[in-house]
Order: sequence, then C-alpha cells, then structure tokens
Amino acid sequence: MFVIITYDVGQKRVGKVCKKLREYLDWTQNSVFEGEITEGKLTKCLTELNKIIEPEEDSIYLYKVKNPRNIKKSIYGQEKSPIDLFI
Amino acid sequence: MFVIITYDVGQKRVGKVCKKLREYLDWTQNSVFEGEITEGKLTKCLTELNKIIEPEEDSIYLYKVKNPRNIKKSIYGQEKSPIDLFI
Repeated sequence: MFVIITYDVGQKRVGKVCKKLREYLDWTQNSVFEGEITEGKLTKCLTELNKIIEPEEDSIYLYKVKNPRNIKKSIYGQEKSPIDLFI
Repeated sequence: MFVIITYDVGQKRVGKVCKKLREYLDWTQNSVFEGEITEGKLTKCLTELNKIIEPEEDSIYLYKVKNPRNIKKSIYGQEKSPIDLFI
C-alpha cells in the first residue's frame, strides 16, 4: 500500500511527529511524507502519532492508495532529498 | 482525476503559488492542495505554476490518481478548513 501523510501540528510537536514518521516513511518536502507500508505498520505508526498530537489543535492527513500503480508522482523544479536537511 | 499537490517554494513566491492553486484545487493544510480536476485544467495550472516558480530553488510535487475511488483519505485530529485562514 502506498500512503501520503501530511501534518500540521503545534511547533512543540513538529520534531516528534517528524521523527516518528521518518521511522516508517520517506520525507518528501515540508510536512509531507510518503512511502509503501503494510496495513499493520501503518496502524502502529498512527497509534504512536495519536499519542504525540494534541487532537484539539493538530491535524494529520492520510491518503491511502492500495495499489501503488494507481498513483503517479511528478516533480516540478527541484527534487528535495533528505540530504537537503543537512545543508 | 484526483490530485494532491504539495509545494516548497521560496518565501517570496508562496503567496503567488498558493493563490494560483486555489483557483484550481482545495486547500487542505500547510502547503497541500487536493481536488478533482480535468487533465486540461491540470495542464493549465501547471503551466501557470511553472511561470511563477524558480526551478532551481522551488519544488512542486504532484500525485495523480485517475480514479478517485482508488484513494482513501482519513483525517486525525482537527480538520483544517479554509475558514481557519481567517481566524
């Protein structure tokens, strides 16, 4: 299964959410992660995220595509890679 | 066709990119837009975005799902709506 997860969380929790998502998915840009993941690992990831976020303030959007062939990704301009984080 | 567009552009161009995307799609949160769009309108939108962005610095990610039934969206925490922008 292919997923895209985007988040908008309070400043204090950005680092924790980002670190958690990095354990399961690939960072693409800003507050967006993507990747292939099993249903079991996704459930685990979401359970852990739910412990971090403040449901009254934060939001996490999850887009699931069962068959990765059904989604096509294109990049315009620069492809941001994780290495950008260290420049 | 259902699309998700995320962007990471220089501060000076954020407003322009955001305004352009708003003409074609729905804002979800942070730098993420989504919505159903025709191939023709998407091409028009991308052509216009290409005129705004600096390809050496900015990046725009496009995810296309031909059949909207192949993508499932879930929201955890708060659903951010466009009205949040005016609070």
